[in-house]
Amino acid sequence: VPTGPQGEPWTYSAAGVDVTARSRALASLLAGARFRPPPSHGRVLDVPGHYAGLLRIGRETIAVTTDTVGTKVLLAARLGRWEEVGEDIVGVNVNDLAAVGARPAGLVDTILCARADDSVFAAIGRGLGRGLRRTPCALLGGETALVPDIVAMYDLGGTAFGFFPRGRRPVTGARIRPGDRILGIPSSGIHANGFTLVRRLIDQARVDLTAPRAGETLPLGHELLTPTRIYTRAVDAIADRAETHGLAHVSGGGLRNLIRVNSKVQFVLDRWPAPPSLFEWLRSLGAISHEEMFQTFNMGIGFLLVVGREHLSETKRRLARAGAPDAVEVGHVERGTGVRLPDLGLHYASYE
Amino acid sequence: VPTGPQGEPWTYSAAGVDVTARSRALASLLAGARFRPPPSHGRVLDVPGHYAGLLRIGRETIAVTTDTVGTKVLLAARLGRWEEVGEDIVGVNVNDLAAVGARPAGLVDTILCARADDSVFAAIGRGLGRGLRRTPCALLGGETALVPDIVAMYDLGGTAFGFFPRGRRPVTGARIRPGDRILGIPSSGIHANGFTLVRRLIDQARVDLTAPRAGETLPLGHELLTPTRIYTRAVDAIADRAETHGLAHVSGGGLRNLIRVNSKVQFVLDRWPAPPSLFEWLRSLGAISHEEMFQTFNMGIGFLLVVGREHLSETKRRLARAGAPDAVEVGHVERGTGVRLPDLGLHYASYE
Repeated sequence: VPTGPQGEPWTYSAAGVDVTARSRALASLLAGARFRPPPSHGRVLDVPGHYAGLLRIGRETIAVTTDTVGTKVLLAARLGRWEEVGEDIVGVNVNDLAAVGARPAGLVDTILCARADDSVFAAIGRGLGRGLRRTPCALLGGETALVPDIVAMYDLGGTAFGFFPRGRRPVTGARIRPGDRILGIPSSGIHANGFTLVRRLIDQARVDLTAPRAGETLPLGHELLTPTRIYTRAVDAIADRAETHGLAHVSGGGLRNLIRVNSKVQFVLDRWPAPPSLFEWLRSLGAISHEEMFQTFNMGIGFLLVVGREHLSETKRRLARAGAPDAVEVGHVERGTGVRLPDLGLHYASYE
Repeated sequence: VPTGPQGEPWTYSAAGVDVTARSRALASLLAGARFRPPPSHGRVLDVPGHYAGLLRIGRETIAVTTDTVGTKVLLAARLGRWEEVGEDIVGVNVNDLAAVGARPAGLVDTILCARADDSVFAAIGRGLGRGLRRTPCALLGGETALVPDIVAMYDLGGTAFGFFPRGRRPVTGARIRPGDRILGIPSSGIHANGFTLVRRLIDQARVDLTAPRAGETLPLGHELLTPTRIYTRAVDAIADRAETHGLAHVSGGGLRNLIRVNSKVQFVLDRWPAPPSLFEWLRSLGAISHEEMFQTFNMGIGFLLVVGREHLSETKRRLARAGAPDAVEVGHVERGTGVRLPDLGLHYASYE
C-alpha cells in the first residue's frame, strides 16, 4: 500500500494544502478589510462563516459567492479536456448560493491563462454554457487575463449571485432543532475538492488515467473530471418551505460544512449510504483514514438538507419533481454539537 | 534610446500582451456560454461590450463587474509592498461600476497564492480596507486559494456589484449627442493597466526602482504602485442627473474606452491637459508612439464624463463637492465616430 511522504497514511495537509496557514492568513487579511459602509450603500446581513454573503439592497436581498475550480484544472490540462472544468466554474459557485436558499441569477467568470488557446476557450465556453443551462442563470460578464508571469497554465473561477423570490427568506440553519431529519442528494463524483491530494496519490502510484478502474468503463481521467452536480433546481423547489431548516453544500471541508450551518446541535449521520467505489479506491490508494476522507471529499453526497421531521416524505417528493429523485435520508439532528458518523466512530467538533 | 525587442519602438503587444489573441479566445468562449435563463431567474439588460453586466432582479437593477489587478502584483512582489495592490482590488472594480452610474454595494475578493504569508495578507487586507472606505462598500466574502501548482506568487482579483438608487437609471452613453462637453478627472498615476509593458521597459533600461526619477521625491517603485484613484463618490453625485449622458473609466484600452460607451459620435479631445511627467518618462524610455501611449495608459485622466453643454459648470461644482475639485474640461462631442486627439493628429476608430 503506497503511503504518504514519510511512510504514514496520506492526508490533505501532507499533499501540500496547509489549511491552518490559510485560515491564519485569511484572519490577517480580514483584520484590515472589515468595514461597514453607510446604509445608503446597502445593508450587510450577518451570516458569519456562511457560504454566501448577504446584502440588502433597496427592496431585495442579494446573495453573493465566489470560488475557483482549484487544482482540478491541472488534471484537465493533463488530459486536454476542458469542458468539464468549464461547467465546474458554474457548479462550485451556484451550489454555494443554493446553500443559503438563494435562486441563482447571474455569474461572472474569471479566466487567467498563460496564453489564449482558442480550442481550450471554446471547450470551457461549452462547459460554462452547460452549467448555466442546468442552473439556470445568465453569464453577466467576465475577465480574461493573459498573465504568463502569474499563472503556469490556467486558473478558472467565478462569482455568482442570486436573490430571494418574493416571500422567501435566506435559509441560514438557525432554525435547525433536535429531531430534524437530514436528507442527502448524491454527488456526481469527487466534484472539485481534494484534487491536490488526488493528484499526489495518482502520481505516487503511477496510475494510468486513460484506463478505467477495475469494473468501470469510463477511463479514470474522465471519471475524475466529471463536473460538479448542480443542486440549484432541487433546492429552489424546497427553499420557500418553512420546514426547510438548513442547507449544506458538501465542498472543501467535507462533512465539517454542516457545523458552519449550525454549531449548536449535533448532526448524526447514521444512515450514510455506502460511498461509491471511487472513494474507497482513493482511500486504499493512500491508506487514508476515514476521518480524513470525510473531511476532504463529499463521500457520495454533495448536498445536505435539514428538514422538520414531519416533512421528510413531502420534501423528498418535491426534490424528486425538481430533478433529484435520488435524495435519501442520511441522518438526523440531536442535542449536542458537531457531526457524528456512528458507524465509523467519527466525531468532528468544529468547522475548521 | 532603448527600443523594443527588434529595435523598433516598444508597444504593449511587443511586451507580450496579445490583445487580438485574447479577443479571439474570448469570442470562442462566449459562443458556447451564451444562454438566456427564464425571466424567473432575473432579466439581463442589454449593454453589450459595456463595463458592467446589468440584471433586473425583482424590483432592483444590479450591476456586476469583475477584474484583476493584473501584473502590477509582480511589481508589488519585487518591492515587497502589498497595501497598494490590495487597494487596487477595489479600485479596478468599483470604477467599472461607476462607469454605468451604479452605486457600489459590495465586493468579493479572490486571492490566489503559492503560499500564505501572514504579513502579505495583512498588508493586502489594509489596502482592501482603505479602498472599501474610499468607495464606500462592504467586503461580502472572498476566496483564498493556496495553489502553488497554478500561480507563481500571487494573483489579486475581485468582483464588485452595485445598484441604482430609487429614480436613477443606468448611464449607458446612449444619450450622448454632438455638442456635449467632456470632463476628465485626473488619475493618481498609471493605476493598474499597462504594467507588462512598464516592467519590460524598466528591466530593459535597468532602472533603479528604489531611487526617485529626476525632480521627484518618491522612489520610482512607490510612484508606480500608487493605488488606482476611486471615482465612485464623485460619480454618485452626478449619476442621477439627466444631463449626465455618458461615463467612461480609462482602464485597459486607454482612450478607446470612450468608443464602447457610444460608437455613433466622435469624441474630440482638444483640451487634454499635459500628461504628468511619469507618462512622458515612460514614453521616452521605450520610444513609444503617442498612439500607443493613449491606447495603453490613462495619460493623466482616469475617468471621463460626458455632459449636456449647458451643465458643464454645474457638474463641475457637484464633482468638486464630492471629492473631485480637479475635474477639467478635456473636449467635446461632434458628429462622426471614434476618438480624436487633434493636437497629436490621432484618431482611434474602434474599441478593439
